[in-house]
Amino acid sequence: MLFRNILQAGYRGVVYPVNPSWKSVSGVRCYPSVGDLPEPPELAVVIVPAPLVTGVMTELGESGTRGAVVISAGFSEIGGVGIGREEELVATAKRFGMSVVGPNCFGVINTAPEVSLNATFSEDLPPRGNIAFVSQSGALCAGILRYGISERIGFSRFVSVGNRAGVEESDILRSLATDDHTQVILLYIESLANERRFLDAAREVSPRKPILVIKSGRSPEGERAARSHTGSLAHAAQDRLYTALFEQAGVLRADTIGELFREAKVFATGARLDGSRLAILTNSGGPGIVAADACARGGLSLPTLPERTQARLRSLLSPSAAVGNPVDTTADASIRQFGGALKELLDVTDIDGSLVIATPVGELQGPALAQAILTSRGRLKKPVVACVFGLVDLTQEVRTLEDHGVPSFTFPEEAVAALASLAHYERRHDRTPRPFHPYPVDRAAIDRLLAGVPRAESTVLPEFSARALLAAYGVPFAPARLAQTLEEAVRFADRVGYPVVLKVASPDISHKTDVGGVRVGISDESDLRTAWKEVRDAVTLHLPKARIEGFEVEKMITGGKEVLVGLQRDPRFGPVIAFGLGGIYVEVLQDVTFRLAPFDQTEAEEMVASVRAFPLLQGVRGERPSDLPALSTVLGRVAQLALDLPQVQELDLNPVIVLPTGKGAFAVDARLVLGPTGRTSRSARPASAPRSGSGRPQRPPTGGAPRRRR
Amino acid sequence: MLFRNILQAGYRGVVYPVNPSWKSVSGVRCYPSVGDLPEPPELAVVIVPAPLVTGVMTELGESGTRGAVVISAGFSEIGGVGIGREEELVATAKRFGMSVVGPNCFGVINTAPEVSLNATFSEDLPPRGNIAFVSQSGALCAGILRYGISERIGFSRFVSVGNRAGVEESDILRSLATDDHTQVILLYIESLANERRFLDAAREVSPRKPILVIKSGRSPEGERAARSHTGSLAHAAQDRLYTALFEQAGVLRADTIGELFREAKVFATGARLDGSRLAILTNSGGPGIVAADACARGGLSLPTLPERTQARLRSLLSPSAAVGNPVDTTADASIRQFGGALKELLDVTDIDGSLVIATPVGELQGPALAQAILTSRGRLKKPVVACVFGLVDLTQEVRTLEDHGVPSFTFPEEAVAALASLAHYERRHDRTPRPFHPYPVDRAAIDRLLAGVPRAESTVLPEFSARALLAAYGVPFAPARLAQTLEEAVRFADRVGYPVVLKVASPDISHKTDVGGVRVGISDESDLRTAWKEVRDAVTLHLPKARIEGFEVEKMITGGKEVLVGLQRDPRFGPVIAFGLGGIYVEVLQDVTFRLAPFDQTEAEEMVASVRAFPLLQGVRGERPSDLPALSTVLGRVAQLALDLPQVQELDLNPVIVLPTGKGAFAVDARLVLGPTGRTSRSARPASAPRSGSGRPQRPPTGGAPRRRR
Repeated sequence: MLFRNILQAGYRGVVYPVNPSWKSVSGVRCYPSVGDLPEPPELAVVIVPAPLVTGVMTELGESGTRGAVVISAGFSEIGGVGIGREEELVATAKRFGMSVVGPNCFGVINTAPEVSLNATFSEDLPPRGNIAFVSQSGALCAGILRYGISERIGFSRFVSVGNRAGVEESDILRSLATDDHTQVILLYIESLANERRFLDAAREVSPRKPILVIKSGRSPEGERAARSHTGSLAHAAQDRLYTALFEQAGVLRADTIGELFREAKVFATGARLDGSRLAILTNSGGPGIVAADACARGGLSLPTLPERTQARLRSLLSPSAAVGNPVDTTADASIRQFGGALKELLDVTDIDGSLVIATPVGELQGPALAQAILTSRGRLKKPVVACVFGLVDLTQEVRTLEDHGVPSFTFPEEAVAALASLAHYERRHDRTPRPFHPYPVDRAAIDRLLAGVPRAESTVLPEFSARALLAAYGVPFAPARLAQTLEEAVRFADRVGYPVVLKVASPDISHKTDVGGVRVGISDESDLRTAWKEVRDAVTLHLPKARIEGFEVEKMITGGKEVLVGLQRDPRFGPVIAFGLGGIYVEVLQDVTFRLAPFDQTEAEEMVASVRAFPLLQGVRGERPSDLPALSTVLGRVAQLALDLPQVQELDLNPVIVLPTGKGAFAVDARLVLGPTGRTSRSARPASAPRSGSGRPQRPPTGGAPRRRR
Repeated sequence: MLFRNILQAGYRGVVYPVNPSWKSVSGVRCYPSVGDLPEPPELAVVIVPAPLVTGVMTELGESGTRGAVVISAGFSEIGGVGIGREEELVATAKRFGMSVVGPNCFGVINTAPEVSLNATFSEDLPPRGNIAFVSQSGALCAGILRYGISERIGFSRFVSVGNRAGVEESDILRSLATDDHTQVILLYIESLANERRFLDAAREVSPRKPILVIKSGRSPEGERAARSHTGSLAHAAQDRLYTALFEQAGVLRADTIGELFREAKVFATGARLDGSRLAILTNSGGPGIVAADACARGGLSLPTLPERTQARLRSLLSPSAAVGNPVDTTADASIRQFGGALKELLDVTDIDGSLVIATPVGELQGPALAQAILTSRGRLKKPVVACVFGLVDLTQEVRTLEDHGVPSFTFPEEAVAALASLAHYERRHDRTPRPFHPYPVDRAAIDRLLAGVPRAESTVLPEFSARALLAAYGVPFAPARLAQTLEEAVRFADRVGYPVVLKVASPDISHKTDVGGVRVGISDESDLRTAWKEVRDAVTLHLPKARIEGFEVEKMITGGKEVLVGLQRDPRFGPVIAFGLGGIYVEVLQDVTFRLAPFDQTEAEEMVASVRAFPLLQGVRGERPSDLPALSTVLGRVAQLALDLPQVQELDLNPVIVLPTGKGAFAVDARLVLGPTGRTSRSARPASAPRSGSGRPQRPPTGGAPRRRR
């Protein structure tokens, strides 16, 4: 079947069937083995029982074949014996330097005229086009091909990645980046073979070619289904990390498959929105209102049209027409009026794109409608998207429009959502990345601090050492000092100013408050003298045997907002920084955001702005806004620490107190867990080590280096 | 055109054209005037220039015609002279007791075989079916008819309501309730003619026939578009009130037109989900995972199948199949296996419905696939929804399934969303309404308190009076007393217990705190004596001329959660109750919810549970949960006050302190604005007045009286 499909699709090279039992396949002479072929194949499509695959791969490797698509199932996805088989397959491919797609895949399609390869079981193909579809689910490929045929979606490539024993998403992205036939990349993902490598590849490719993704297994239900399906672990609990990853990679995440293809349809026309200012032309009020609502949801604005344009529209259209934005010609508009109005809208400098909604009534239907829209658009590059209200894709009007680069939708909301996705892409890729300069750190202090720590197991660093380590990384703390004597404490408090906090420092006391070991809000010297005595007596009373290293005097930071900054290492995602407002915001309302370290200042600022409670930091009820640059810097410095010190397993700065603008942000409490570096996972290996090979965290590009599209 | 359409659609009565200038219309003898007709018409479709409409209506009225559909435009929608015309039209219709649909409408369609009336300009009609579509936008009707034809959506009625000078949404809902041909009601609304009448009608109808609505003009952008479109005010800022209204009315609000019709397709089959427990059968993992994610989003659960069922599935299916839920037969399943598995799933008692996802591969395509699904379903009443992955609606498989009552979707998310809507409907209408007993109130106290208040203008009631009024309504306050002497204050504080709060009571002091007129946290008698002196002296010092009525001693409520309860009167929605958690939750995070008064205890509880910060009331970090019944009762009592006392224009209880379960909820501060009752709007008229006519707030049905579907 697959061989016949290759022939039928008109492959431009030579294809040889290989099978020991047959003389011919589909009328083509069949060879008993790879060795018998008249020439070594460049690419092999392997469809033999799983136990025979490694043998075939060896023959191929020996013959000099460089690439293989392994369709056969029965590998890691079945567990047990399959895992060993897949390891053998990988080893064999490695030995001969072969690229392998699969195993357990649906095959590949390359519609480029110079290739024309359909190495799948699907007989019928959708039209040629510029969309590449990469899928972790084979069956989904089959369904999407059928959908593409119905909806006339043009594809450049189809890749079913299967178990990703060889080729994985990041490889495919890089390959598609240089494929002239591909302009838009769609991914269906249940998990990624390697999150960090994907991040790096997608960061490179997404500014030039939009990448749209469906990541399933989002929910516990989906995760369970994914697990039983492929044997790969879908990390539903980690869905928010995927969201962070896609955002950082400049990848657009769609919520549904329908949405994925509606957005792809618009991106595939090459349309780009320079901004988010839309004009809507409609011949019917209701759909215009529906579209305006959808604009508000999607973050698109509908600016009022310039007076000059309004005047022209008034003279062009009937008196009952509305010439604001949406422009409503009313249902009795002629083709001439409707087309003329569109021309006017496209002429407005401050409009980035147009949505044309035509309810098929009166003159506004059939070929004339499509023609009027196309003529008015002319050679303009500004995107025009159409909604011929209620008409499904197979209608003639819709066909004509789409054949000439005007994507058309049945309902206005769909059109607007796709346009909003264009705008989102533009915003994401048009921002100016700030230079990523590693922050200056006190390397000597860091080495000294870490030298004494045992490396064998996880250790919670004493708080005072944790603070010193973070201070060496430039994370500001409230000024504090470990005082041995009361006079030392008083001198320090005089210098930093009251109020201060006094805490006992002892390796034997973990819950200081419970034993009276902490006093806050000490307002003056006499108060401090009393507190010193009280704390000392209370601790002695409760824990007479505790070793007391001294008393920590700390300037009490007041009048700020409490936030928390955390660092975790995820076995797949590597170092992840968490941020949220303190107290119930994170714990109860789950208002927390994540980013993969490292990130630049712009990303740190976006991170801060992405929590729901962000307005609290901007200042409410006449408060002064919080010092956001100082806060973003703390995030950036912690991210750098995460990268430099792989032995830091976990870090919690809770709270960090953010003062009003210009006053800084100060960590108050630090909990830092050191672990053996050897235990860090594949993707979380130290970035301070020389950077070579893939799969390691990379710093974002520096200076003016691109992440911009043009 | 319209006359020809009536003939073409095979109207079962007699239709006469009337026009003074023509001898015939479409070959049918034309009459010069209504008076010349051989018999008085039952229904007239009026399409004459706007200035002539009233004259025609008078003729019709005199001839005894009882109903008219006025297509003509040029009425209130154009403002100015049009408004007068519409008033005339209304007066004329009233004089003759005629029902009027329109003016400025697209017409009506009734596909009932015994009627078969197409009184619109649309020549082509979608198939007959059980969906009624009611629209405020005429052009939208035209588009939906075209869509219905493409997608083979069966309609029972089409009503374009136009300016709603006579017939409005509530009338149409009641009429559709008794129409045997209509099972599902779809509405497109930009505004409602009368929100309260709609609420009453929809509450009656929705338990028997699902009502699905698109309410546009949600956003400021949409509102602007709506205003310029119809002249009717779309209240975008009030979108949340519409959400509350629909929720209380049991109406399902769709976000997009596409969603509206996808949901309607499932409801139209008569399928109902008794619960939210779904089973998914799929032949491909990817789409199964996607569906499982969508279930999580839509609130549907995927229970693990009983061991017995799993065992049977294991013996039926291939070894690589997954027999959890989703059940994944894998792509090589035969028709027999796939159909058999569906039968097994439908046999499970604890499953409320099934989603069958078939990616068309191998045996599983074409007529055999559709047949297998239909056969397995058999005569079972449990809903089965299909997704033949990637296949659009015109495909043969899909047609066969849909013709036999199995709605089918291209992608799994769409199928799940529609099923989730079924489940939502069921949850909404299956809950047991609690009896609505008016709370006992102290009528004498209320009358006494209100007697002295001037009725001419808005007055902020003195706080102590406001508290007394609310107390008469049974809203608990912290025990408080207006003390004239210190000894009186001490006696009261002794009785209620410390801590207490002391406040000066004076009609001349509005900001008590600013003049030292408030002391909180008074911990014992000596503290109270000092505070009394300090407050008195401070007030005398700052405002020597202020009249002092005494000092309010109030038990200080501690250890609870602060919430706010508000009452506002909206000119369209009438009395509206607001609820949210105190402080930044409402002000900054806009975490506030609304309900139209009155409502029963169940609705009050749902209201409380609908804010995002609800977990805080359930108790976090080991706290005891808050006294939710007490809080709901406060909401219910305020709602009753809103209904009984139309002169209460505004009320803020901020904060209400909710103590742990069993300890109650106490209002601490009350601000109550009384206004002249005459100023209340149409829909906010007092409900304490005898209830007659429509448009007035009604109490929800009491006792076991229905709002249930069956």
